[in-house]
Amino acid sequence: MADLPIRFGIIGCAEIARKVSRAIQLAPNATVSAVASRSIDKAANFAQANGFPPEAKIYGSYESLLDDPDVDAVYLPLPTSLHLKWAVLTARKKKHLLTEKPVALNVDEFDQILKACEENGVQIMDGTMWVHNPRTHKMKEFLNDKERFGQLKTVNSCFTFCADSDFLKNDIRVKPDLDALGALGDAGWYGIRSILWAADYELPKTVTAMRHPVLNEAGVLLECGASLLWDNGKVASFHCSFLSNLTMNLTAIGTLGTLHLTDFIIPYQEHEASYTASTKPNFNELVTGWAQLPSEHTVTVDLPQEACMVREFASLVKNIKKNGAQPDKKWPTISRKTQLVLDAVKASIEKGFQPVEIVS
Amino acid sequence: MADLPIRFGIIGCAEIARKVSRAIQLAPNATVSAVASRSIDKAANFAQANGFPPEAKIYGSYESLLDDPDVDAVYLPLPTSLHLKWAVLTARKKKHLLTEKPVALNVDEFDQILKACEENGVQIMDGTMWVHNPRTHKMKEFLNDKERFGQLKTVNSCFTFCADSDFLKNDIRVKPDLDALGALGDAGWYGIRSILWAADYELPKTVTAMRHPVLNEAGVLLECGASLLWDNGKVASFHCSFLSNLTMNLTAIGTLGTLHLTDFIIPYQEHEASYTASTKPNFNELVTGWAQLPSEHTVTVDLPQEACMVREFASLVKNIKKNGAQPDKKWPTISRKTQLVLDAVKASIEKGFQPVEIVS
Repeated sequence: MADLPIRFGIIGCAEIARKVSRAIQLAPNATVSAVASRSIDKAANFAQANGFPPEAKIYGSYESLLDDPDVDAVYLPLPTSLHLKWAVLTARKKKHLLTEKPVALNVDEFDQILKACEENGVQIMDGTMWVHNPRTHKMKEFLNDKERFGQLKTVNSCFTFCADSDFLKNDIRVKPDLDALGALGDAGWYGIRSILWAADYELPKTVTAMRHPVLNEAGVLLECGASLLWDNGKVASFHCSFLSNLTMNLTAIGTLGTLHLTDFIIPYQEHEASYTASTKPNFNELVTGWAQLPSEHTVTVDLPQEACMVREFASLVKNIKKNGAQPDKKWPTISRKTQLVLDAVKASIEKGFQPVEIVS
Repeated sequence: MADLPIRFGIIGCAEIARKVSRAIQLAPNATVSAVASRSIDKAANFAQANGFPPEAKIYGSYESLLDDPDVDAVYLPLPTSLHLKWAVLTARKKKHLLTEKPVALNVDEFDQILKACEENGVQIMDGTMWVHNPRTHKMKEFLNDKERFGQLKTVNSCFTFCADSDFLKNDIRVKPDLDALGALGDAGWYGIRSILWAADYELPKTVTAMRHPVLNEAGVLLECGASLLWDNGKVASFHCSFLSNLTMNLTAIGTLGTLHLTDFIIPYQEHEASYTASTKPNFNELVTGWAQLPSEHTVTVDLPQEACMVREFASLVKNIKKNGAQPDKKWPTISRKTQLVLDAVKASIEKGFQPVEIVS
């Protein structure tokens, strides 16, 4: 059994499931064993288009996939509003759960999902890929280095892309009954996660939404931002939007160093990824230029970051299956904190941009 | 007279005056003709240390320099709290005025200075150097290009540096009776200017300070930030600090393009300067990488940006002196808008982070 891969079933044939299907096939410890759609034809077409192994099973209902004893883990790319129902059911069927983000519409739903996972001894992880990139680990080493980075003081994170008119009319991410969190859930999730990541997942004391959210006619956020404040003087802000050109910048500034990159969510290239780091750069004597330039660091990425994610998840699942280990708590804890801050941004908007205290 | 350079007198031997002295000597249409300090020895030492021509006059009082008929223009690097007195006097003595930023402690003072300049027919310009870099003009071409950049949607600007304990104790920028605006006046001025620059100097409708200003015991700002909001959906934010590692990032995002650079105030190198631009970059088919990378553009800088500033100022002065032209209004208008927003940030902090309307 040591060498048997973790067998994934995919529930729903969303666009993002194409990328994750490939990642499951690339990960050395995972395999695709089933796919389900409400239409069996759609599932069959998806399996063929994405090069599933011939033995992969095709289901015309999510329930039948969940009843398949040859499925160890479920990848759930359904719209957020469906997560609660299907995530809880996945857990009750004793399947481990790799779920797209946002995990839930709010932390109450999140906690119901988490409870179901805990009660059934299954692993849960959300589909935030960039945190699994080897670059992310190198960057974290820099942030943790008191000599090179010092104490974290501020983080700024921005993720925008310019959705076309079809997206703004038809995509699930602009529909109040599907991905009701809109740009905040889709793009803001990454901004919030990147801030928490830089802050070693220390939750901020308060979250205050920026006074500029853009909502569509149905009340779904198309653009927003917030500032986060910690007791110890750390501050952060993020901006997310469906209405501006594709940009994904992350800057973390410490007392001694600065980390910066402009492709933090999806690296420019699959097989290598870069960031810049500077430590006490200072100016030249007359302050007409810099004495040292920020240095660029490039990390080789043997496995695409989404495959690293699958590998990490499958490894935790294998440890549970094979060794009877307890589900890892790190990933759900990180997910829940992200969801908590996301809730606070929403609450701050609803309260007229007043600061909202984070109570974990 | 066509070829005679504009003769500068320098009032005060501040650190920054070293850089600007060199710039005056580098500019083809300017020369240093006098320097004044309250101590004549200090002025003499300054002249020698900075390679002033032997005929340059040395004054032990600011008044005597202002009475010198061989001084056309004054460069004023004094602490902000002294600007009102000496700028107004400079104007009354019919000397043109290149003044360090912030121009004044608030817009009321600014307007007194401006009135004195207008009544006496002298040019005023503030010492913001980066806007004179040839790179800035190239970047503006990109922002103005509807095909490559589209409509401006958001700007984020950050300028921080980590002041040492001596600075935090003794520098004029932490003293309430000298540069009372602290980090907001010193570093925030650039952030505000960069936002206005990107927005074609359209004033925002409201300014809301971030809920995290850090003040020293004397009440001087060491760190703050704000968000700016326009009626047409444009948003911007800036962060400035004396307490974080040297960082100067500017990102302007339009509907179609993104401009980004990490050395906008002081370019890494004197003789060339770069920025990145992207237009509708998009992802590859599986969204595992980018279809196009942002392109890097490098601009050759024949004259350091501070010398470009002096050249521009001297050229306006020459036009007044030689051709009887009216003082240019563009530069004081830009300065005043910067000061207006700066006032609004301060007012928002004082009003408990409520939005402050900008009334020009």
